[in-house]
Amino acid sequence: MIPAYAAQAAGAPLAPFMLERRRPGPRDVQIEILYCGVCHTDIHQARDEWGGSIFPMVPGHEIVGRVSAVGTQVDRHKVGDAVGVGCFVDSCRACAPCRSGMEQYCDEGMTPTYNGRERGTGMPTQGGYSTRIVVDQDYVLPIPAGIPLDRAAPLLCAGVTTWSPLRHFGVVAGHRVAVMGLGGLGHMAVKLAVAMGAEVTVLSSNASKREDALALGAQDFATTGDGRAFKSHARQFDLIIDTVSAPHDYNACLGLLRVDGTLVLLGIPEPSPVSAFPLVSKRRRIAGSMIGGIAETRHMLDFCAVHGIAADIELISVDRINDAYERMLRGDVRYRFVIDIASLAR
Amino acid sequence: MIPAYAAQAAGAPLAPFMLERRRPGPRDVQIEILYCGVCHTDIHQARDEWGGSIFPMVPGHEIVGRVSAVGTQVDRHKVGDAVGVGCFVDSCRACAPCRSGMEQYCDEGMTPTYNGRERGTGMPTQGGYSTRIVVDQDYVLPIPAGIPLDRAAPLLCAGVTTWSPLRHFGVVAGHRVAVMGLGGLGHMAVKLAVAMGAEVTVLSSNASKREDALALGAQDFATTGDGRAFKSHARQFDLIIDTVSAPHDYNACLGLLRVDGTLVLLGIPEPSPVSAFPLVSKRRRIAGSMIGGIAETRHMLDFCAVHGIAADIELISVDRINDAYERMLRGDVRYRFVIDIASLAR
Repeated sequence: MIPAYAAQAAGAPLAPFMLERRRPGPRDVQIEILYCGVCHTDIHQARDEWGGSIFPMVPGHEIVGRVSAVGTQVDRHKVGDAVGVGCFVDSCRACAPCRSGMEQYCDEGMTPTYNGRERGTGMPTQGGYSTRIVVDQDYVLPIPAGIPLDRAAPLLCAGVTTWSPLRHFGVVAGHRVAVMGLGGLGHMAVKLAVAMGAEVTVLSSNASKREDALALGAQDFATTGDGRAFKSHARQFDLIIDTVSAPHDYNACLGLLRVDGTLVLLGIPEPSPVSAFPLVSKRRRIAGSMIGGIAETRHMLDFCAVHGIAADIELISVDRINDAYERMLRGDVRYRFVIDIASLAR
Repeated sequence: MIPAYAAQAAGAPLAPFMLERRRPGPRDVQIEILYCGVCHTDIHQARDEWGGSIFPMVPGHEIVGRVSAVGTQVDRHKVGDAVGVGCFVDSCRACAPCRSGMEQYCDEGMTPTYNGRERGTGMPTQGGYSTRIVVDQDYVLPIPAGIPLDRAAPLLCAGVTTWSPLRHFGVVAGHRVAVMGLGGLGHMAVKLAVAMGAEVTVLSSNASKREDALALGAQDFATTGDGRAFKSHARQFDLIIDTVSAPHDYNACLGLLRVDGTLVLLGIPEPSPVSAFPLVSKRRRIAGSMIGGIAETRHMLDFCAVHGIAADIELISVDRINDAYERMLRGDVRYRFVIDIASLAR
């Protein structure tokens, strides 16, 4: 049994919990967790806001730690390695998406790191608000040297969730990218897009984020509250990375795009009416994107190491998690809480 | 003055009208019109359903005829050539979309063949329900030998409007394409996609179109009315060509797409709510597409000549145009009315 923090029921505050992990099988890697990032998804699921949550639930899918044991067939990782685990720990490995490195879109459904069920056993999966995790080696990511481990944790979700659409929708040097919403995802999108050579504009409802946006490398900032940005920045962008999870007007956002531009949704707001006109008149697109595959997570981590990129974090002890949730709901974090798992082992 | 048919005011029945055309300038081509297809857009604009219509209005942007005179600098066309004119007759020629052969997305706005204003003079443009038109040579399309001229007319709008997204969104042999709505656009989408080697499924609210769909080359047909198609065909398609102009549930359509699939809207229905979930969970897209550029219209015509493709039409005399509009609104045409302009010259 290992120490963890769990929600015992929908909306219950997270509290200490003892957890059983499986013994490593031949292809498993056992990881002593050092840091775990706190994602907005953790709140949604701990409060069962999407339905179907499994309790007790140990959230956390931005996990960084060190390998403490490996199964007999493990050849990709060795004891002592710094490694990470992201949003999923398994998938079918046989469908077209899995075979092309898009395990997150697995036809049978990926196995989430927590609030899911293990393939085969059907046992609930439990996440990174705990001192140890055991994961199949193919779903464990090496953390390259040079990235501080606490600041690496959010890369496993927030990092790859913004990396994947930036790459998939073809951002290259000189492209004009808008990032809507400057939170955990948004601040990573700015850092990554700037490092790719894009000209980045941050669009935020919160005027106080201008200074941060520019410090993160954005060349421009506009507030969306009064609607003026939708005129002043009309038809400017090749891509909009939309991290906003509250309902908003997609049609206004589409007007910011050039011909063939794409609005990529990363959040799941309530449905909002879409007019065909801004799509048809400039061959624009609304797309969605969900985290990223294992191979692209590896590429993202390597890119971050090369470019000196890591998340901006506030390190907390685990007993502050419930307060952290409240602060996240108020947007009061710059830009990601990361739990120091040493505080759980004490 | 030449004979034409015009709407004198919003919703007025079309009636005989005498029209002045400009004398051909140095780069102009004068065309004696033989056939003009009847597009649903003609009805929208003649009835001022989108606002801003200019009256009197001579509709028609699916024009085929023969060159009767050319300006001194014309080098692309000669007297006697079979030629066509589509949805636009000019554009700025300088913006990025124009320079890359996407004149339909011109930053300054393309000049529509009718219900627009000429660049420079500001004179209203007038369309193909008339015996003659004068058009800059760069916006005149050669009709390759082998396509019957009456059946070629709808290619200038319905043909290229479906060709462009099929090509742009990368349809190749073996792709699974759904065509939603089997009207003027839909029947061209089926013919073109089948000739590209795609497996085509027609989705229609009208079960009576099954036989036609299969005769056009579709391999499958499903009715959308009872919702069963959205289950039986879930996650099957790479691309949906959506020609439906009535409001419909985009989220249900998105569920028909594979990972990375695209729903392309060609019509302009009233806004409809879009849920982020089907987009995000499979990296799907909703896009729009509007007609096509000059170069791609030329490619489409060449492709049609090679593959023996032309529109299925009902040839009418011009005095039947008002009845034809009513029949189109009832979906009672298989699949495009074409006006025999000889009936106007009598």
